[in-house]
Amino acid sequence: MLAQNVSNNVVDIEDLSRLKSDLNRLQAVDVGEYISKLPRKKRALAFRLLNKGQAINVFEYLPPEIQQQLINSLHDGRVVQIVEEMSPDERAVLFDELPAGVVKRLLHELSPEQRQATATILGYPEGTAGRVMTTEYVRLQEGLTVGEALEKIRRQDRDKETIYYAYVTDYNRKLRSVVSLRQLLFSLPDALLRDIASDRVVKIKTETPQEEVAQLMKRYDLIALPVVDREKRLVGIVTIDDVVDILEEEATEDIQKLAGVSGGDEAALSPPQVTIRKRLPWLLGNIALYVTAANVIAPFQQVITIVPVLAIIMPILANSSGNVAFQVLSVTVRGLGVGEITPKDTLKVLRKELLAGLGTAIGLGSALAGLSLMWAPSGEHWVSFVAGAVMSVNVLIAVTLGTVLPMGFKQLNLDPALICGPLMTTTLDAIGFLTFLSLVSFALQVLP
Amino acid sequence: MLAQNVSNNVVDIEDLSRLKSDLNRLQAVDVGEYISKLPRKKRALAFRLLNKGQAINVFEYLPPEIQQQLINSLHDGRVVQIVEEMSPDERAVLFDELPAGVVKRLLHELSPEQRQATATILGYPEGTAGRVMTTEYVRLQEGLTVGEALEKIRRQDRDKETIYYAYVTDYNRKLRSVVSLRQLLFSLPDALLRDIASDRVVKIKTETPQEEVAQLMKRYDLIALPVVDREKRLVGIVTIDDVVDILEEEATEDIQKLAGVSGGDEAALSPPQVTIRKRLPWLLGNIALYVTAANVIAPFQQVITIVPVLAIIMPILANSSGNVAFQVLSVTVRGLGVGEITPKDTLKVLRKELLAGLGTAIGLGSALAGLSLMWAPSGEHWVSFVAGAVMSVNVLIAVTLGTVLPMGFKQLNLDPALICGPLMTTTLDAIGFLTFLSLVSFALQVLP
Repeated sequence: MLAQNVSNNVVDIEDLSRLKSDLNRLQAVDVGEYISKLPRKKRALAFRLLNKGQAINVFEYLPPEIQQQLINSLHDGRVVQIVEEMSPDERAVLFDELPAGVVKRLLHELSPEQRQATATILGYPEGTAGRVMTTEYVRLQEGLTVGEALEKIRRQDRDKETIYYAYVTDYNRKLRSVVSLRQLLFSLPDALLRDIASDRVVKIKTETPQEEVAQLMKRYDLIALPVVDREKRLVGIVTIDDVVDILEEEATEDIQKLAGVSGGDEAALSPPQVTIRKRLPWLLGNIALYVTAANVIAPFQQVITIVPVLAIIMPILANSSGNVAFQVLSVTVRGLGVGEITPKDTLKVLRKELLAGLGTAIGLGSALAGLSLMWAPSGEHWVSFVAGAVMSVNVLIAVTLGTVLPMGFKQLNLDPALICGPLMTTTLDAIGFLTFLSLVSFALQVLP
Repeated sequence: MLAQNVSNNVVDIEDLSRLKSDLNRLQAVDVGEYISKLPRKKRALAFRLLNKGQAINVFEYLPPEIQQQLINSLHDGRVVQIVEEMSPDERAVLFDELPAGVVKRLLHELSPEQRQATATILGYPEGTAGRVMTTEYVRLQEGLTVGEALEKIRRQDRDKETIYYAYVTDYNRKLRSVVSLRQLLFSLPDALLRDIASDRVVKIKTETPQEEVAQLMKRYDLIALPVVDREKRLVGIVTIDDVVDILEEEATEDIQKLAGVSGGDEAALSPPQVTIRKRLPWLLGNIALYVTAANVIAPFQQVITIVPVLAIIMPILANSSGNVAFQVLSVTVRGLGVGEITPKDTLKVLRKELLAGLGTAIGLGSALAGLSLMWAPSGEHWVSFVAGAVMSVNVLIAVTLGTVLPMGFKQLNLDPALICGPLMTTTLDAIGFLTFLSLVSFALQVLP
């Protein structure tokens, strides 16, 4: 919002010194947003107005495509300076997007230490702790006193991503314990580190999936979490700001995948072709699948000719089963996503869903039966009761599948959000139509 | 998971001393989970094994109903001790759940300072910054030096929720600036606080909704955010651990509301009656609404008798429009939820959705037309093309409503997630059926 003030007041180049002072005074994220929204050609111009510290901060908040554009239009010395100062995890994200040639050149210009840090992070697969961690953390040797530790932090750790936790390692770099800056500050200077540091360290492996990292940090209210390799050596930390982003990302994925957006990471403002690519395949796949459901109806065209009220009831049956499915999926998938439930709870959740489903089945079944009576000609009132019964059974099937399938997927280490709503509704439609039409068809043959 | 080890190994009361040592050694959140899962009668027993510090920590992690049970079964001195040590925001949550009489008694026993803090927080409406903030923050006077500030923190602020940010106020308690412990530590002891503290303070008001608080902290990568009253006096801070919970809660609400779970805060393991209460009203409301859609079909029963293939096509039309609606809603509502878009972007998003929708309309329309050809008798092939056309138009209506309605709701300060999928699918069904059946009926009259 600050950026909007800026763009309203001072885009005029005449007022350059005012713009310069504003850009250097405002929060980096706001300046980043302001620069992102400028016309392409003005971006490098505005960016050059930033002083060194602000430029480095702002750069980290720019989207990768604009970072890349700036890299191409700034002179090499400036680029190297900025990239050198980026935190290694942000740098890894940028390098992922840059052409290989540019990455190679930039890596070459970095200090050996930063080059190593970047290479380490880029070596881990996307979506793992290794990829989101930073290598800029405070490490202390076991033997120090509190005073020595504080002095070491003051002298050497100015550039670390967080100094609020320090990790104590042995001579082999193996993680031993953790101590907070708070503990250090509230201890006597000559206390021994090993006496105040806690060996109840919550830690994760480099290959831990990022959503597990986020859930752990949430569970233990941590602002940083150490990452160790297979030899239990400390290699980095994940900080809370990354976790906040991960949690939002995962929630967005859950919502969108449930709704049948593939990958589940469409931005509201992504270009139309991306939107089509993420949505149309699911829709077409689903309509193809729906052929099965429709094939179920096809043989019964004769029945529909005899009892046309079926054509009114069937969409209601389909719509209501679909709604039940979306409800149960939203609760189960989200419960799995936030770690409230695990596949071990399947029976417990199923029991609850079936009990609640019984109530829903009776409610929806009666409602459909009642409403159908309105349309059914007097000779066909029995159809309403069949409709109500089928509705009730479909509800119970919906809650069962909506519980068991995501739990099963999770158990198999697949993404439970893949059991998306569209797939469920199509399945339920097919089951509902088949039962309904078969019963009506059977009744027509048996009834006088 | 640690708690599971405990419960597997040492629930046996014979091994009491082992249990006691485990319970006091493990992380508070794990012990809280362990105690919550114990049979009702054993909870107080296990809780009494905790030493004072651990008891206070564990208590904050217990769900309010178990906190209440413990309050009833522990002796008064212990209860007061624990409640006194809780952070004021956690205490406010507990007091919300306790019977008024118990609250009154406990308030009476608290120290004046803690009583005041609790009363302040309870004075703000649920879901606002005032309600989630803590009053335990570090406050510094403007005139101090860095050394004096550090000394003051060491001496007086041991119990503050975070000491990593300190807030600088004037003699009127008005918020002036903020300084991080990091800055203090890396500055010379005789530097003046006013020279190093930043007056670019991101702050919020007590009445700011919690989701805005969370979005701000995410945007500026903060671990604490100061809260001021109308006179700009500092009254509390919101810390990152609360924000992480708020973000998850808001995401869960978005997902569940979209799927038509009222309130959007159903836990996967909530009792069946809660589930029914949260889901059935929507389902029944929706089926009542569907009567409108069905009333649209009712007058056309004759047409369906003549062209029974309509009964096959209609469910596919309904299902596919519904899928499109869920996709666009999931992207728009989530985009609004995470602050990626605002109602100002309506035209931009609509333009993108319509462009993408055009592609989807052509794809789905052709698919439905093609598939319908399979079932339509040779004399009724024209019906397939009508179906395809109606499908395409319905897609465009779906993306338009799915964009404009949530944006409009947000503009009116209503919750955009209230435009839930079920409501949209019913509306789209009604529109689609009416258009389709009218066109076919018209064609039947005109065609030779």
